[in-house]
Amino acid sequence: MIVPQRGLYNELFASKAMHEIFSERTHVQAILDFEAALARAEAGAGVIPEETASAIAAHCRAKRFDLERIAEGTAVAGNVAIPLVAALTDLVARTDPAAAPYVHFGASSQDALDTALVLQLHKALDVFDAELGCLCDALANLVRRHRRSVLLGRTSLQPALPVTFGLKAAGWLSTAVRGRERLRALRPRVLVVQFGGAAGTLASLRHRGLDVATRLAQSLNLGVPDVPWHSARDRLAEVGAALGLVVGGLGKMARDLSLMTQREIGEAFESQAHSRGAPSTMPDRQSTIAASAILAAALRVPGLVATLFAAMPQEHERGLGGWQAEWDSLPEICLLTSGALMHAVRVLSGLRIDTERMRANPEATGGVILGEAVALALARHVGPQKAQALVERACARAVETGLQLRDVLETERELTNHFSVAELQELCDPSFYLGLADDLSERALAEHARIAGGSEK
Amino acid sequence: MIVPQRGLYNELFASKAMHEIFSERTHVQAILDFEAALARAEAGAGVIPEETASAIAAHCRAKRFDLERIAEGTAVAGNVAIPLVAALTDLVARTDPAAAPYVHFGASSQDALDTALVLQLHKALDVFDAELGCLCDALANLVRRHRRSVLLGRTSLQPALPVTFGLKAAGWLSTAVRGRERLRALRPRVLVVQFGGAAGTLASLRHRGLDVATRLAQSLNLGVPDVPWHSARDRLAEVGAALGLVVGGLGKMARDLSLMTQREIGEAFESQAHSRGAPSTMPDRQSTIAASAILAAALRVPGLVATLFAAMPQEHERGLGGWQAEWDSLPEICLLTSGALMHAVRVLSGLRIDTERMRANPEATGGVILGEAVALALARHVGPQKAQALVERACARAVETGLQLRDVLETERELTNHFSVAELQELCDPSFYLGLADDLSERALAEHARIAGGSEK
Amino acid sequence: MIVPQRGLYNELFASKAMHEIFSERTHVQAILDFEAALARAEAGAGVIPEETASAIAAHCRAKRFDLERIAEGTAVAGNVAIPLVAALTDLVARTDPAAAPYVHFGASSQDALDTALVLQLHKALDVFDAELGCLCDALANLVRRHRRSVLLGRTSLQPALPVTFGLKAAGWLSTAVRGRERLRALRPRVLVVQFGGAAGTLASLRHRGLDVATRLAQSLNLGVPDVPWHSARDRLAEVGAALGLVVGGLGKMARDLSLMTQREIGEAFESQAHSRGAPSTMPDRQSTIAASAILAAALRVPGLVATLFAAMPQEHERGLGGWQAEWDSLPEICLLTSGALMHAVRVLSGLRIDTERMRANPEATGGVILGEAVALALARHVGPQKAQALVERACARAVETGLQLRDVLETERELTNHFSVAELQELCDPSFYLGLADDLSERALAEHARIAGGSEK
Amino acid sequence: MIVPQRGLYNELFASKAMHEIFSERTHVQAILDFEAALARAEAGAGVIPEETASAIAAHCRAKRFDLERIAEGTAVAGNVAIPLVAALTDLVARTDPAAAPYVHFGASSQDALDTALVLQLHKALDVFDAELGCLCDALANLVRRHRRSVLLGRTSLQPALPVTFGLKAAGWLSTAVRGRERLRALRPRVLVVQFGGAAGTLASLRHRGLDVATRLAQSLNLGVPDVPWHSARDRLAEVGAALGLVVGGLGKMARDLSLMTQREIGEAFESQAHSRGAPSTMPDRQSTIAASAILAAALRVPGLVATLFAAMPQEHERGLGGWQAEWDSLPEICLLTSGALMHAVRVLSGLRIDTERMRANPEATGGVILGEAVALALARHVGPQKAQALVERACARAVETGLQLRDVLETERELTNHFSVAELQELCDPSFYLGLADDLSERALAEHARIAGGSEK
Repeated sequence: MIVPQRGLYNELFASKAMHEIFSERTHVQAILDFEAALARAEAGAGVIPEETASAIAAHCRAKRFDLERIAEGTAVAGNVAIPLVAALTDLVARTDPAAAPYVHFGASSQDALDTALVLQLHKALDVFDAELGCLCDALANLVRRHRRSVLLGRTSLQPALPVTFGLKAAGWLSTAVRGRERLRALRPRVLVVQFGGAAGTLASLRHRGLDVATRLAQSLNLGVPDVPWHSARDRLAEVGAALGLVVGGLGKMARDLSLMTQREIGEAFESQAHSRGAPSTMPDRQSTIAASAILAAALRVPGLVATLFAAMPQEHERGLGGWQAEWDSLPEICLLTSGALMHAVRVLSGLRIDTERMRANPEATGGVILGEAVALALARHVGPQKAQALVERACARAVETGLQLRDVLETERELTNHFSVAELQELCDPSFYLGLADDLSERALAEHARIAGGSEK
Repeated sequence: MIVPQRGLYNELFASKAMHEIFSERTHVQAILDFEAALARAEAGAGVIPEETASAIAAHCRAKRFDLERIAEGTAVAGNVAIPLVAALTDLVARTDPAAAPYVHFGASSQDALDTALVLQLHKALDVFDAELGCLCDALANLVRRHRRSVLLGRTSLQPALPVTFGLKAAGWLSTAVRGRERLRALRPRVLVVQFGGAAGTLASLRHRGLDVATRLAQSLNLGVPDVPWHSARDRLAEVGAALGLVVGGLGKMARDLSLMTQREIGEAFESQAHSRGAPSTMPDRQSTIAASAILAAALRVPGLVATLFAAMPQEHERGLGGWQAEWDSLPEICLLTSGALMHAVRVLSGLRIDTERMRANPEATGGVILGEAVALALARHVGPQKAQALVERACARAVETGLQLRDVLETERELTNHFSVAELQELCDPSFYLGLADDLSERALAEHARIAGGSEK
Repeated sequence: MIVPQRGLYNELFASKAMHEIFSERTHVQAILDFEAALARAEAGAGVIPEETASAIAAHCRAKRFDLERIAEGTAVAGNVAIPLVAALTDLVARTDPAAAPYVHFGASSQDALDTALVLQLHKALDVFDAELGCLCDALANLVRRHRRSVLLGRTSLQPALPVTFGLKAAGWLSTAVRGRERLRALRPRVLVVQFGGAAGTLASLRHRGLDVATRLAQSLNLGVPDVPWHSARDRLAEVGAALGLVVGGLGKMARDLSLMTQREIGEAFESQAHSRGAPSTMPDRQSTIAASAILAAALRVPGLVATLFAAMPQEHERGLGGWQAEWDSLPEICLLTSGALMHAVRVLSGLRIDTERMRANPEATGGVILGEAVALALARHVGPQKAQALVERACARAVETGLQLRDVLETERELTNHFSVAELQELCDPSFYLGLADDLSERALAEHARIAGGSEK
Repeated sequence: MIVPQRGLYNELFASKAMHEIFSERTHVQAILDFEAALARAEAGAGVIPEETASAIAAHCRAKRFDLERIAEGTAVAGNVAIPLVAALTDLVARTDPAAAPYVHFGASSQDALDTALVLQLHKALDVFDAELGCLCDALANLVRRHRRSVLLGRTSLQPALPVTFGLKAAGWLSTAVRGRERLRALRPRVLVVQFGGAAGTLASLRHRGLDVATRLAQSLNLGVPDVPWHSARDRLAEVGAALGLVVGGLGKMARDLSLMTQREIGEAFESQAHSRGAPSTMPDRQSTIAASAILAAALRVPGLVATLFAAMPQEHERGLGGWQAEWDSLPEICLLTSGALMHAVRVLSGLRIDTERMRANPEATGGVILGEAVALALARHVGPQKAQALVERACARAVETGLQLRDVLETERELTNHFSVAELQELCDPSFYLGLADDLSERALAEHARIAGGSEK
């Protein structure tokens, strides 16, 4: 087998757990799990004898199959299920010829493939919920730890009012919590069997179709959908979109961190300096590997989500091209999401924050970011218009001269008339103009606690 | 003002109602609604005098503003709120100079713009819920009317087992119902005010920030989010994705209908033949205008959704480029969704179904689509393997000779030994091999009833 | 190593040749080819001794490296070049310690990785040109063979005037020829080395930088770009887009073929009926595997192209996330293009055309598609308006009664006054109303010949 | 007419010139230009009388048509050409009833609409070439002006070797030059008439079809394609992609500039500080409006390009949905490209560069970015390994102590043994370690000159 180039990047862009879930071995096993469960459900419903079911189920082990041959068969047959079911039938025929005709009985290839995918998504969603739990916990800790860490707020990459690093992290947390909520909400819609037979009517099972479907779903720990969904693909596109929202949120965090890690800003760092690739003459060059991997995922997932959406208008009872377009796209989204989550959790566990630099950076603006605070305070004495005019003039002077605003203000009689030097110092201190940063952060923590408390299923 | 070319297609690609909601007049009014509600909330919280609030609110009428000038100001200032707030301040200053400094007090442009968008989305979601209700009702009627209409099932555009047209419509309904469900589920997450001031801390309102936020949200009939979301954009991307799932589902219906309308298939038609553009020498050329418009939407929305997702990693406290990328994209998705829904509802109201053609098309396959049915029945007498071999041979002969399968079977002793001619006729009759088509359709109707019963909010 | 699920579909969705080109072995070898060529170029330019270059080059064999370890190193270092260069340095150090410091001398990881990618693209473009040559030849044959095969023209999936199958194929050919032309045109822009050192200035090579660059490029059979392009990524996005245009064109062909293969239309087939996966009771069910694979590619490539475009705004001298987003995306586009081409060539080599059905389908419209022809002929006698009115009436009657238009016309005195029965028959014969179908097809063949004659480089 | 909300942003996101080209008036006029040219070409070829052509052409003025009514007709007929041709026919019938049947003779709606679009693209491509010319000239000036302006090179947003601002601008120029080259190269492929009649055969014109096509093309200053391209859409997708490459390149420039404008970096600014929207207490807050608009375009265009690509697989002789999906998408790409170009040209005309800050920023890294330079120089005396070890130690000390590297080096005997203090100062001076920055910039200027010299057609 030719090992694809992308394999070299597997461990960079995806987690090992997700790789296992979307490995060829797991996929084949998931198809076989469907076949075994189907046989047992049919036995339970009286469609086939118990022994037949047992004979079939006994062979449903991925390791008994030559996957290279299955891949070759796939190229000819158009999907994995066809050669796999054929190979399973051969195996069964060797030990119990009478059981062979009942392998895959009443099901279509798509029943097997879609249900297998859902079984894999089930595992993936469990992993994502757990990973998002870790991420949210780490973010919540960050929020709590930095509720008083003054940080320069920046809008359009320009200085704005002071904020706290806790509030910034609360924003990241808030999106992650909603992401987790959405992934939980879609479970009942998505975690359902696909089972309809050749055209979605379960015709070959006659009146026992729903009984078989129910038993099948139960044994696979899935729901029974209203109707088979061979060409109604909104469920899968929904999973892709919900993961895309998670990745986009992580991308926002990664972008912020990468900007804060710039040499000239120096507020936050991806754990120890000097990553492996850095030239050893630049010991303080910071690693941005996690941010790179997350931002790469945030660039790649939107196109993959668009593919799932564009593939939705599938023809009649089974799509021609649209269905096939999903096969790599949704697993790819899961892999990239896992990688982004993995890096996010890692970054947070080793994140170094330089609160001194955080405090120094607003200072370096000459304090004019506090102009609004001063103007508001002064307005109470001289009215808003006059206050605004006075402070504007002072700020302009601070910028021109390079003096700190507080030093300029101390020379302005209109201000010293109303405020003591200590009061002026306080007005010009970012930590006294943080508004509700802390209360708002608290609200994000409460949302996290609310979701974290809920069961995932 | 230059009227853009796309205006010529407005009524083709979007509904009038949605055009109103995303008109410049409505957008400006929504911003002004925010400003008025803000003033009143601040008065209620004791931040500004009641008269000041009244003075401000009195001017918050879109028709008082010169929108061409606002557009010019937008090109300079970078967003609509800046010139609009400036113009509002001028108006207020003329009637109540003391109130002027309190226009937009404590808010940022983005507070106004995002909340205005949410107000518009609120209206849009109401319209979508109603439209989806109409669509689902129409689809439910279609399902009920055609629960016995035999139709050739087609997988990969090739003949498969028979289905009912009711079941096909149930598949469309099922996706539409989930689409409606998702749009309802996101309301509490999405329908929240944006209110954080210059950097998201509400600093200028000091301890009264949350009180103002709560009053503001209440008067706009919105929720209060945990934290301001100036650069946490998952809510908006979520709306785009949920609408994309609706449009993809409509695209599936439109694709099916357009295929059924082909001259050689002739099963379903977009109301009267001979649309306006058809050459008058081809009176039976069918209109496909609705299908075209819906499929066009299904091709365009995925790219727009991808834009919203790709724009998520926005910098620090306000994005630079990402935020601006949303401004047209989300309204565009709403417009295209409205158009797709409009055409879908129209098509269903005038849909002509030719049940005779539906029944004739499977017949034209020579009846081999019933081979499975015959083989299953025969298996009870001769075992599955022998039955399969016999029926395969008969089907091959039917295809070669062009005879109907039932006619071939009547000449096969192995079959006439076990079945009477009447029984063979029944085995080869598609309407006796529809499996659970009807039960499954019923399940989709039940899901529709469940959702339709729920309140939309 | 975990083998990914997608591996099961490799042979369905991509060609073996392209898999080789984008295998991990080939990628690593391409990086090593860069390193060997760099050492030799530096020796040639007098930067390092010849023996040092030889010592380095001698180890530049992919098979000497443990790729699993390189993959592990990649996860830590952030790209493949870092651990690979480290491993190469170790190897060199063992045989020639003095040479070790000159491994990768003056180059950055990105120099190695980008040039390796370009080397792989070079091979891929050669393969694509050859494959497109085969495709175009096959299409040209199809055009020639079917220049007289009457086919129902279909617009918006509804009957239009008659065309020839040759003209339809000429349309496919025309797009393929332009696709080939574009891929040739971009070669000089794209097939250039990446070589700039740590920040694009080649500083460590001092005045010998350009000499080394030129020698490096020459020995790799690439060009020297104006400036290093570490963060100017239009070249790569251009390759993706040009391939996307090829795939979109193949998608158009596949869509047409899949529609022509519908049971009710039955005009064209993907070689033998009864693909492996078809139920054996439906021997005339047609394979659509090639069309599915091509249409799946046509759905997936646009999202991948969008990713490359969205990744273009890369930061400063090397992107953070944007660069990484390209790594899988461009190879993936190449793989999917190769698969679509492979299936297209295969389909054309085995394509079965049913010219009788092609001729029968327009007949089944009752001949009204020739109404325009009759009206034009009649207009010469009675003027256009009267002619139009008469023919419209006749067409309406043909549709109502189910008669053929020619039979209706024979009963209309206004027509028999001017035309003999034989003339009316001819007017109603699609093969006499094919306009310039043949001349236009000839023009497409001429374009193909023009391009096919040109050298590919 | 409802004016859409996006109208408020027209002047922010697109140029006035491009708005004119894609206005409804221009589009309607372009369709009418096609109709007039068609009539004249048919007269020239002897298909219709000269007077008939004149009678038709006389009415082909957009201002004679009620565009609101055309829009209404469009919603019913499915495209603009149908109601417009009907209205034109009515006008002609009033003045010359005999000419009326020859309006639009032999053409299809799509012939008119596609050719109109190509006529608009022709104008757009002329504008883009001119605008790109201005942009490239401005960039070339920037390159020339800053060939000696030392700038900190930054890879992955971390400090790397020094570069020049000239070289950075040369990278922007290089992409823009290639963008211009591509747009010129596609003109002969794209600037062709669409003319094939109802199904692409020109049947109603009989043997005169190509004569008419040639005259039509000539009078519209377009080429004649090999075959009609009603459902072969690669030409249009190609235009979208080529513009996408331009926008992506501008996005890269905008991203760089926005990063350089950060308060803590302060190297480059979008003309005067204090944009209209900035709070007046922050007089040095920089405008980022141009960067925002460009980056927004760079986020939006990829999705629109993907739509054009995804729409390519259009059915048979005219697409159902795919064609309609292009109608807004390609004009939208043109508008966004025009806006990005407009802002780019504006930014460059007012760009303020702070070369002192540029020089100070590398200084602030403590000079360790020159470690490589020192190590290379030292290697000539003590061999590479020892040199590397010595310099690494010195750099580590510089970082720990906060001293400049040059000051650390002066205390190292191993270095003072080989270098004088002046030599060490020079080794640690970024302006002596710029490699080929200037030569490479020169090469980009040469490419620009080469393209600028070429005719645009």
